[in-house]
Amino acid sequence: MWLRASYELHFDITFPTPFILMLRPRSGAQQWIAREEYALSPQLHVDEFSDLFGNLCQRLVAPVGPFSIRTQVEVLTIDAVDRCPGAEFVEIQNLPYGVLNYLLPSRYCEAEQFNHMAQEITAGQTLGYDQVACIEAWLRRNISYEPGSGDLPVSAVGVNINQVGVCRDLSHLGIALCRALSIPARLVVGYLEGLVPMDMHAWFEAYVGDRWYTFDATPTTSPGGYIAIGYGRDAADVAVFNQFGPPAYPLSQMVHVEQFTPE
Amino acid sequence: MWLRASYELHFDITFPTPFILMLRPRSGAQQWIAREEYALSPQLHVDEFSDLFGNLCQRLVAPVGPFSIRTQVEVLTIDAVDRCPGAEFVEIQNLPYGVLNYLLPSRYCEAEQFNHMAQEITAGQTLGYDQVACIEAWLRRNISYEPGSGDLPVSAVGVNINQVGVCRDLSHLGIALCRALSIPARLVVGYLEGLVPMDMHAWFEAYVGDRWYTFDATPTTSPGGYIAIGYGRDAADVAVFNQFGPPAYPLSQMVHVEQFTPE
Amino acid sequence: MWLRASYELHFDITFPTPFILMLRPRSGAQQWIAREEYALSPQLHVDEFSDLFGNLCQRLVAPVGPFSIRTQVEVLTIDAVDRCPGAEFVEIQNLPYGVLNYLLPSRYCEAEQFNHMAQEITAGQTLGYDQVACIEAWLRRNISYEPGSGDLPVSAVGVNINQVGVCRDLSHLGIALCRALSIPARLVVGYLEGLVPMDMHAWFEAYVGDRWYTFDATPTTSPGGYIAIGYGRDAADVAVFNQFGPPAYPLSQMVHVEQFTPE
Amino acid sequence: MWLRASYELHFDITFPTPFILMLRPRSGAQQWIAREEYALSPQLHVDEFSDLFGNLCQRLVAPVGPFSIRTQVEVLTIDAVDRCPGAEFVEIQNLPYGVLNYLLPSRYCEAEQFNHMAQEITAGQTLGYDQVACIEAWLRRNISYEPGSGDLPVSAVGVNINQVGVCRDLSHLGIALCRALSIPARLVVGYLEGLVPMDMHAWFEAYVGDRWYTFDATPTTSPGGYIAIGYGRDAADVAVFNQFGPPAYPLSQMVHVEQFTPE
Repeated sequence: MWLRASYELHFDITFPTPFILMLRPRSGAQQWIAREEYALSPQLHVDEFSDLFGNLCQRLVAPVGPFSIRTQVEVLTIDAVDRCPGAEFVEIQNLPYGVLNYLLPSRYCEAEQFNHMAQEITAGQTLGYDQVACIEAWLRRNISYEPGSGDLPVSAVGVNINQVGVCRDLSHLGIALCRALSIPARLVVGYLEGLVPMDMHAWFEAYVGDRWYTFDATPTTSPGGYIAIGYGRDAADVAVFNQFGPPAYPLSQMVHVEQFTPE
Repeated sequence: MWLRASYELHFDITFPTPFILMLRPRSGAQQWIAREEYALSPQLHVDEFSDLFGNLCQRLVAPVGPFSIRTQVEVLTIDAVDRCPGAEFVEIQNLPYGVLNYLLPSRYCEAEQFNHMAQEITAGQTLGYDQVACIEAWLRRNISYEPGSGDLPVSAVGVNINQVGVCRDLSHLGIALCRALSIPARLVVGYLEGLVPMDMHAWFEAYVGDRWYTFDATPTTSPGGYIAIGYGRDAADVAVFNQFGPPAYPLSQMVHVEQFTPE
Repeated sequence: MWLRASYELHFDITFPTPFILMLRPRSGAQQWIAREEYALSPQLHVDEFSDLFGNLCQRLVAPVGPFSIRTQVEVLTIDAVDRCPGAEFVEIQNLPYGVLNYLLPSRYCEAEQFNHMAQEITAGQTLGYDQVACIEAWLRRNISYEPGSGDLPVSAVGVNINQVGVCRDLSHLGIALCRALSIPARLVVGYLEGLVPMDMHAWFEAYVGDRWYTFDATPTTSPGGYIAIGYGRDAADVAVFNQFGPPAYPLSQMVHVEQFTPE
Repeated sequence: MWLRASYELHFDITFPTPFILMLRPRSGAQQWIAREEYALSPQLHVDEFSDLFGNLCQRLVAPVGPFSIRTQVEVLTIDAVDRCPGAEFVEIQNLPYGVLNYLLPSRYCEAEQFNHMAQEITAGQTLGYDQVACIEAWLRRNISYEPGSGDLPVSAVGVNINQVGVCRDLSHLGIALCRALSIPARLVVGYLEGLVPMDMHAWFEAYVGDRWYTFDATPTTSPGGYIAIGYGRDAADVAVFNQFGPPAYPLSQMVHVEQFTPE
């Protein structure tokens, strides 16, 4: 499926403000970036670097005045994410080294608090993919998805208490439950075609069998149409923008995703 | 200063148990590993790898029965850690890329909660080293250091409420306060000569001027004698042992550190 | 300076052929990628990864039949590359770790053969930038630049014997001479506005003072207009396409670079 | 097999000389470092870092006067290296990213020169392990192993002309032949128990099936007893010592390897 996705951010900066943006998606096994635009207004000096997780990050200092970011990508992505019921749990000693880090508790995924609950939810399931699918189903049944209900990330413990959250929060609980079962899990931030209301989206991936699989705790009925922008342990690692110093809130944000047919 | 440090861990394993150990200190600018021993009993197959932060980690599966780990190092370390009052705050745009990651909130350092408090504690201080020294002094005055008071790590928020903690917990609060000021900070786990009661120790480092500086929120009067074993965002990243599956608690742990004169 | 650069490659594949391409320039301190297109025909599955040097590489298997690659970028690049006469030689012990690798001899830069010659060419120069500038000037005076004179890379030793070469070959000799003076040097492949005849270009960078500086041994009069696509030790590391199995030569290649004014 | 290996190097330094040493072997799947000593005389400030290939390197500046390095390790290593006739050739598109770099030509392994010869030597062999075993056997039959015949590394092309070389040189030819067949190959420097005359040793590894396998072109009859110190593309990457500035030759070098029984 070919998708065209765009993201616009407008600020009114009152104090020179350092930003770290994560708005340049990378091509990977699941997506091919065929076209990309990244416009800053005013045009500024930018440093770009890869973070610990391989994401391309842009560092800049926004000057006083109006400041806008406009990005657009055209991406070939899979029509339906791979599903693999029965894919096996990978023993700790057989996991690739680069994946081990996703077993640890992190800022918004207090995995060590969920041992009992994760066992209970997945009781009777085959170890591996089926446990994660069971967690995803449990989240859909038990945690209300309320888009726009929160600006700040909520941690797994908080989501479990509130029984409600945005996509990012639900993913945090999903990730914490997976890690409590010694299944590596990570947060993905990106676009999802057909999301209502349209916004940046977040979902999670779990490592079972011999690769990462996509899971989404929100009540989406979309089999595919995902574009990943960044990967990390949780929302602390994959903010699409991080801003330092006195807070600068966007005046407006616009997200747009549509299918198209390449020439 | 030449130090000989040893660490012993004894388990009685009832179920084959994967471990990830972090018990092989690396030489660096502040310490030179002149001799090292690392004995497992029984001898097992071990994989060793570098984690995201450059720490050497050992992965193994402990079989059922008694299982012991004995490590010993002889290290040349600095007599007194470098202090540098006045070392300047580094603007975000000038930080080395590899350091930016230590600005983010993490499992036990909810930095985003401490903006106001960090400003208050450090009011009037020159930005940079002096702010961190002020935080260190504040911790010593306000948070009781109670060695052995807790087996599980406590997060910065918890420590601030409890007003008490072990070395690791105090460091978590110190790190969160630094990050709230946009100063990169990280946890260090290792040995400290003269610590009473002797145990594994934890302290923190902050990046100001153009390098990492050592800080210790515990009431130590030791100007030096530190041996770093591992670095990370917080205790989640630098457990000297991480164990997976049903919990296996050590029957005993012994830490010993002494000065010696090399032949 | 805003540049629009494009590169087209056409093959007629007679046997399924694995390729590793390096055709996605990254933003960095010297250039900002504002727009990028990368089209494959037919559209194939592609894996993208970062190599040892941080370059984005695309791996694919071209099927039998016509196969085309078309890339285009719009880049903001500096009008004139930074020059810094007097920038000092950096002692080995003070070089950043990531730079040390560029001191070693490599496939096409047999640095260890050039100690005497490098000393002779740069006799009397201040250590550092001035030595490299002197090498660049020597290359322009002594080695004929003959675009299109060779398809295969020629090593520094060969170029020194032949006294002639393409941009890549001249750079190999420049790099070998720098490394013989313990100055880190690396090859850059990319676009240069105004190059006659237009083609992919190669130049080199040397690390002096506290950063990489651009040098170009070809008789270009262009003060700037460079777009870097890849970095490496020499041409072995930065082929824009590497192909495995029976050789597949491009039927045609087109390079186009022009200035433009963004809307 | 438990081995105790030691290496001593003595210099008389006439000019302050930067060194980069690679003398701290790492534990891995094939070896466990149980005890290690690393003594410098005089004791100096040392920086330690990981290079591009994961080797631990030590950087220091040796002052004027006598300078000695003494290292000793006690290692549990496999009794016999794994052999796996029939292990399959891995298609380029299925190789792990980290391995691709070992397909490229390098300073002493001009792989691109050996396409025809590699095909000829391995004609009729099953693709993969059997090709490499065939190359190893060919080297033993056709290239004379003359320990001590050369201080400077000789490249694959040179070795093929000379028909003679030290272990490192023979490995260079073996590696170049493997890469010419699109089989990743790398040089290993380390100890070998029972080597006559005793010295530092070099051998090579090829990636077939799903891992690296050990090959040794020298007429050793030893099924095992290898301790790896460093890995790289060729001898340029894995010098146990690299020295900068006016040459400083060791007055003496001593290598000793023996089996022992741990207490």
